[in-house]
Amino acid sequence: MKRIYSAIAVFVIGLILILNHSQSLAQNSVSDPLPSWNSGTPKTAIIEFVNRTTTSESADYLPPKDRIATFDNDGTLWPEKPLIQGMFILESLKVLVKKNPDLREKQPFKAALEGDLAYIKQLGEEAVMELLAAVHANQTQETFTVTARQFFETGIHPTLNLPYTQLAYQPMRELITYLQKNDFQTWICSGGGIDFVRLISEPMYEISPQQVIGSSLKKQFIEKEGQFVLWRADKLNSFNDKAEKPINIDLHIGQRPILAAGNVRNGGDIAMLNYSQGGNQKSLQLLINHDDAEREFAYAEANNASLKAAQKNDWQVISMKKDWKRIFADQQ
Amino acid sequence: MKRIYSAIAVFVIGLILILNHSQSLAQNSVSDPLPSWNSGTPKTAIIEFVNRTTTSESADYLPPKDRIATFDNDGTLWPEKPLIQGMFILESLKVLVKKNPDLREKQPFKAALEGDLAYIKQLGEEAVMELLAAVHANQTQETFTVTARQFFETGIHPTLNLPYTQLAYQPMRELITYLQKNDFQTWICSGGGIDFVRLISEPMYEISPQQVIGSSLKKQFIEKEGQFVLWRADKLNSFNDKAEKPINIDLHIGQRPILAAGNVRNGGDIAMLNYSQGGNQKSLQLLINHDDAEREFAYAEANNASLKAAQKNDWQVISMKKDWKRIFADQQ
Repeated sequence: MKRIYSAIAVFVIGLILILNHSQSLAQNSVSDPLPSWNSGTPKTAIIEFVNRTTTSESADYLPPKDRIATFDNDGTLWPEKPLIQGMFILESLKVLVKKNPDLREKQPFKAALEGDLAYIKQLGEEAVMELLAAVHANQTQETFTVTARQFFETGIHPTLNLPYTQLAYQPMRELITYLQKNDFQTWICSGGGIDFVRLISEPMYEISPQQVIGSSLKKQFIEKEGQFVLWRADKLNSFNDKAEKPINIDLHIGQRPILAAGNVRNGGDIAMLNYSQGGNQKSLQLLINHDDAEREFAYAEANNASLKAAQKNDWQVISMKKDWKRIFADQQ
Repeated sequence: MKRIYSAIAVFVIGLILILNHSQSLAQNSVSDPLPSWNSGTPKTAIIEFVNRTTTSESADYLPPKDRIATFDNDGTLWPEKPLIQGMFILESLKVLVKKNPDLREKQPFKAALEGDLAYIKQLGEEAVMELLAAVHANQTQETFTVTARQFFETGIHPTLNLPYTQLAYQPMRELITYLQKNDFQTWICSGGGIDFVRLISEPMYEISPQQVIGSSLKKQFIEKEGQFVLWRADKLNSFNDKAEKPINIDLHIGQRPILAAGNVRNGGDIAMLNYSQGGNQKSLQLLINHDDAEREFAYAEANNASLKAAQKNDWQVISMKKDWKRIFADQQ
């Protein structure tokens, strides 16, 4: 036993010396948790909110189990011009018409296949989900996963000229990391397909596939060629937009998020932000405004509903142009 | 910098000495991860399965992200005679008729209120869900949560004479802990209501509310008295039984579980176990047989479908009488 006691003594002394040293290192360089954010109201609001909810002496302190954050994906964590899942559908349509050339003259395949982004843009998200059902339904879940993985391995954004998987907004990645370090659960709540987004949530945002909420198809549990599989029916189970977002957050999480982030485009995130704000706890709502035509895209909502809601409810509006030093990781 | 290097050296030497020592300690006293399980085929199968899937040299090794385990709740993690959620509904019915005495003479309230367990037993789980809708719908999610919490604070099992919250099967708690220590994600996949089970998953099983899958009501996102709330509609969204279990596992988890546990009663877990077994990875299926009239209950299925499936597919059938040293934590 003597040996173990002296080993412990040596260990403890070593540990104390190291801790002292690393503490002084830390004090010398208090690092910025959001280096890609410019100073300004949103950045200050975020840091203040995290401090208030995680400091045990604070009146707004919440235990880790109550620190839930939900993020929209398209336009909030990565670009939505064009919708990346729309490009995936187009890609799959091209493969499909090789096998069934008759489809080339049939609508909506014909128009989609002409490949013009304008057409894809014209489609609402719900219509995109319908097209998705045409090419990505009536197959097993496993088959879909293989196709989607292939898309992500090779897909390049048509104007930004980067692989889709490198299009995470760097400031939002930093925000996710910052929240995770402060024991927040970080969830994606996307209008995109749940099975599609799950494939990139971990590599792109360090969010586990289990913390992804999204639109979904109805599925059937069937035996096919002696194997039990899930079959993707050509029917929407849930279009995770607007009021469906809080409903699906409740289904997957069972709690109101205290932080919710969405973006200006079609009012699809207003309900999620309202829900987040509606509890009795301190909360924070972020709304990203796409106003940076040079580094990403500039677009607004026809009726300005999201910005009006932000003003009425005191949500933080994030200007991509003014509040973000860089949009993507590789920009200086 | 000299100081830090010598501190690190001292630290490392101490660490090596300690690790050597603790390794020899561990070899001297390999502790039983499942102390409430008797030696036998199921216990051996579980330990072998965990070793095979978690040892990096093993041909069946799986990284932590693929270690998903799903557990039915009623009859698998706690008793189902009577269904505890059935007792909650009965409790709420009693409160309801105090306010609306007319209901006392109306079916199904009348029969349920006579309080005979025979009636509750007769009801299938789907009918229980219907009754649930009658008392636990048409209210906000917050109101329901308050009522359910009160039930768990005071409810006592009618024959076992223990609070419902003390009725976790001790051997299954040990199994959950053992799996968690081996980096498995442990999920509940219950026929019971998702919002009901979420309230006790953490205190009873150390499973977070976010890792609970269950039956659910349709919900609406509404503004009520100036507050945004979720309203529990009196319509079933999903009855999480039979084929719905794999479908909801896919919705919440997005992966096949490699371990699934259910019980003999109505064949409700067969699909989940089939799904678990249907992947390409090594997997394990557990089926609990209620054959212990003395310490818990003894009952079988009318058509023996679950036991037949177990035999056909080589699932581990767990005899509560033979395989478990104790059923509840307080039993010796």
